[in-house]
Amino acid sequence: MSLTIKSHFASRTYLSFTTKPSRFTGYNTKIRPNSIYHFNPLRLTYYQPKKMQAPFQYSPAPLIKSSLIEPDGGALVDLVVPEGERGAKTIEAESLPKVRLTKIDVEWVHVISEGWANPLKGFMREDEYLQSLHFSSLRLKDGYIVNMSLPIVLAIDDETKERIGSSSHVGLVGPDGDLIAILRSIEIYKHNKEERIARTWGTTAPGLPYVEEVITPAGNWLIGGDLEVLKPIKYNDGLDHYRLSPKQLRKEFDRRNADAVFAFQLRNPVHNGHALLMNDTRRRLLEMGFKNPILLLHPLGGFTKADDVPLDVRMEQHSKWHAKARINAGANFYIVGRDPAGMGHPTEKRDLYDPDHGKKVLSMAPGLEKLNILPFRVAAYDIVAKKMAFFDPSRAKDFLFISGTKMRTYARTGENPPDGFMCPGGWEVLVKYYESLQAEEATQQPAAVSS
Amino acid sequence: MSLTIKSHFASRTYLSFTTKPSRFTGYNTKIRPNSIYHFNPLRLTYYQPKKMQAPFQYSPAPLIKSSLIEPDGGALVDLVVPEGERGAKTIEAESLPKVRLTKIDVEWVHVISEGWANPLKGFMREDEYLQSLHFSSLRLKDGYIVNMSLPIVLAIDDETKERIGSSSHVGLVGPDGDLIAILRSIEIYKHNKEERIARTWGTTAPGLPYVEEVITPAGNWLIGGDLEVLKPIKYNDGLDHYRLSPKQLRKEFDRRNADAVFAFQLRNPVHNGHALLMNDTRRRLLEMGFKNPILLLHPLGGFTKADDVPLDVRMEQHSKWHAKARINAGANFYIVGRDPAGMGHPTEKRDLYDPDHGKKVLSMAPGLEKLNILPFRVAAYDIVAKKMAFFDPSRAKDFLFISGTKMRTYARTGENPPDGFMCPGGWEVLVKYYESLQAEEATQQPAAVSS
Repeated sequence: MSLTIKSHFASRTYLSFTTKPSRFTGYNTKIRPNSIYHFNPLRLTYYQPKKMQAPFQYSPAPLIKSSLIEPDGGALVDLVVPEGERGAKTIEAESLPKVRLTKIDVEWVHVISEGWANPLKGFMREDEYLQSLHFSSLRLKDGYIVNMSLPIVLAIDDETKERIGSSSHVGLVGPDGDLIAILRSIEIYKHNKEERIARTWGTTAPGLPYVEEVITPAGNWLIGGDLEVLKPIKYNDGLDHYRLSPKQLRKEFDRRNADAVFAFQLRNPVHNGHALLMNDTRRRLLEMGFKNPILLLHPLGGFTKADDVPLDVRMEQHSKWHAKARINAGANFYIVGRDPAGMGHPTEKRDLYDPDHGKKVLSMAPGLEKLNILPFRVAAYDIVAKKMAFFDPSRAKDFLFISGTKMRTYARTGENPPDGFMCPGGWEVLVKYYESLQAEEATQQPAAVSS
Repeated sequence: MSLTIKSHFASRTYLSFTTKPSRFTGYNTKIRPNSIYHFNPLRLTYYQPKKMQAPFQYSPAPLIKSSLIEPDGGALVDLVVPEGERGAKTIEAESLPKVRLTKIDVEWVHVISEGWANPLKGFMREDEYLQSLHFSSLRLKDGYIVNMSLPIVLAIDDETKERIGSSSHVGLVGPDGDLIAILRSIEIYKHNKEERIARTWGTTAPGLPYVEEVITPAGNWLIGGDLEVLKPIKYNDGLDHYRLSPKQLRKEFDRRNADAVFAFQLRNPVHNGHALLMNDTRRRLLEMGFKNPILLLHPLGGFTKADDVPLDVRMEQHSKWHAKARINAGANFYIVGRDPAGMGHPTEKRDLYDPDHGKKVLSMAPGLEKLNILPFRVAAYDIVAKKMAFFDPSRAKDFLFISGTKMRTYARTGENPPDGFMCPGGWEVLVKYYESLQAEEATQQPAAVSS
């Protein structure tokens, strides 16, 4: 998880509420799955009820509905103020010293407020920040360890710190000046940016987009506290209906009587290789005895790569697949890509991390014991069968690897990918997007150049 | 712990077998101590037998002897080959591809072989390395988490890797060419030095001694595996009799019927401020119901600061105190200094870490739950009472703070510290050491200069 998020953060932002897809770990007490693909051997305690007494037994499970795993730390937080109290809270917020949020800060308020970062109740105080930075996890008061691989913090500058003075609470104001939340029982502590960057990315080389756009320009102080959000965060970009909260997703999974939820996170348009993998996973889950496994197709917003297909186009493309684009909540199987931590070193010609490390670190992360990690089986285009298939090394020459970059190049140049690579309706969406880009670029040619 | 070690590693090396003083966590099941000084509130689960069912109940305790806590991961490893097998193993080692060790590598072999880094059985393989780097802990096969805040790895260069080829085992050879150990079932993986440094120290700025002397010149590969050490590691420097193994220390604690062991780690000569703290801790442990608390005075060797008093002089100075200089093993109380992570930033005029962070991170580290952290109460010289006393802020002007640097300056310039700062016998040792230094410097004056 850690690396997935870090990779994800290394590029441009769009919206960030989809950044915590595998936080919602838990344990399905009804069905003990058999090993599929590759399970973390450390997770063998699943099959040893006696061993589970110690040390990773989770809180006395409340009634488990449709086998959904429990959120980290027990109940899902819901930090949005009930409608009846909003008037009074808004008046209070107006009376408090103000902290101005960036667009990304607001996205983090969204993440926290709906419980994606459960059990966080607000921006991290120093104890939480240090644990996240050093241990990629938080120990709760009752002793449980939850995964928390990335500090979720709010930075303020010297002047704002001065203005807050000795106030215990502050009002949080959005980029447009609208009151968004109250942060209560605040704690202000030093923002050691160099240490934060070094421990988060394992490098301090210049050129990491999240570092340069978000951390470096931020203030020298961090402010932690408990959030009370004045109303649900919306983006009004035509995609809000896709942004279901964990609570809404759990309800939907319940309604469908899901007994397993398998999450697939992706940054690219879906193609038949992904479809193959999703279908194959479903087949195996059925073989394992699950009756109604549900796919959670979970596209990444937030910081994705600068040249990625924008989220709105991808959402439209996904819809042609009749797969349900959903935000992660309640998933107990998590499908990871080839290299979930994949990113280039910002200044050297090499991968920043070893391609294997993302999967490995994810599979060993404290607090993620209950999540079943399903590593990607490499799919490629089988030129004999004329369809996407799992790569067979014994006839390697029959396979064509079509990377995300290659796929985007096809769409950009109007070239068709091989038959069976993507469904025609989905391909149409991509081609149209790139046509519109080119049309836009053409009209943006400055007159001086065209003359 | 993490930061203590990191700080410690940032300076010059002498010997490193004293670097893991608080690894030996455990839980005294007979006596439930009351809070003294400041306990980590997260550790309150001690007093809640029901809560202890999950998730931090430790393995069904074997018979606890004289209340000593259990080593991490159960039984202490002992990786030294029994005498009867040494001949055959040495012959085998001679037949294997060789890896040449540095002096520091040998010290790590020592650390591992006696169980200071329990349950490590050799230099880390990649799974262990990644967990240590990302989570400062290792999860064992049975699910337990043990603290492991620093990667213990062996680096090799391209040529050595080439020479090893596909061999499963290698022979380890000391700096003088003597065969030291066999490393079995090896795994060779990439040594990403930048990531290792960034995640370990939280900075990649040049000037960290351990980085520049040990990591940067090391090879681009790490080799992990299980150690079989051909005979106990000795240094023949006149101090080996102080270097008791964890097993020997446990035996000694048993012999003395210790029911609590409190460890005091220090890098400076002992003075009366330390003595005050040790005596006060003992008094409090007696008040808590322990009958026979034993002090483990644990001087740091290894990388200490370049201008520190050398270990042999400190050991002689300590002996004047009739306190037993011991390496940590079985201690369940750990006294931490003001700023156990204290080190300057290598290139900027500031502390590398916040002075509070060492204590905080230590108190929250996964795998150290069972260790009772006793933060330092600041002692200073009370000029009214003419003795070291706990600092009383209400009469701050009556107190004189004598730092390690100041103490060394006194001794170097032959000036006496205030009465009651240090016992006269101990002071004598220091003064003599600095006199000998000056005599040495005088004889080293080149003739050209003195003429």
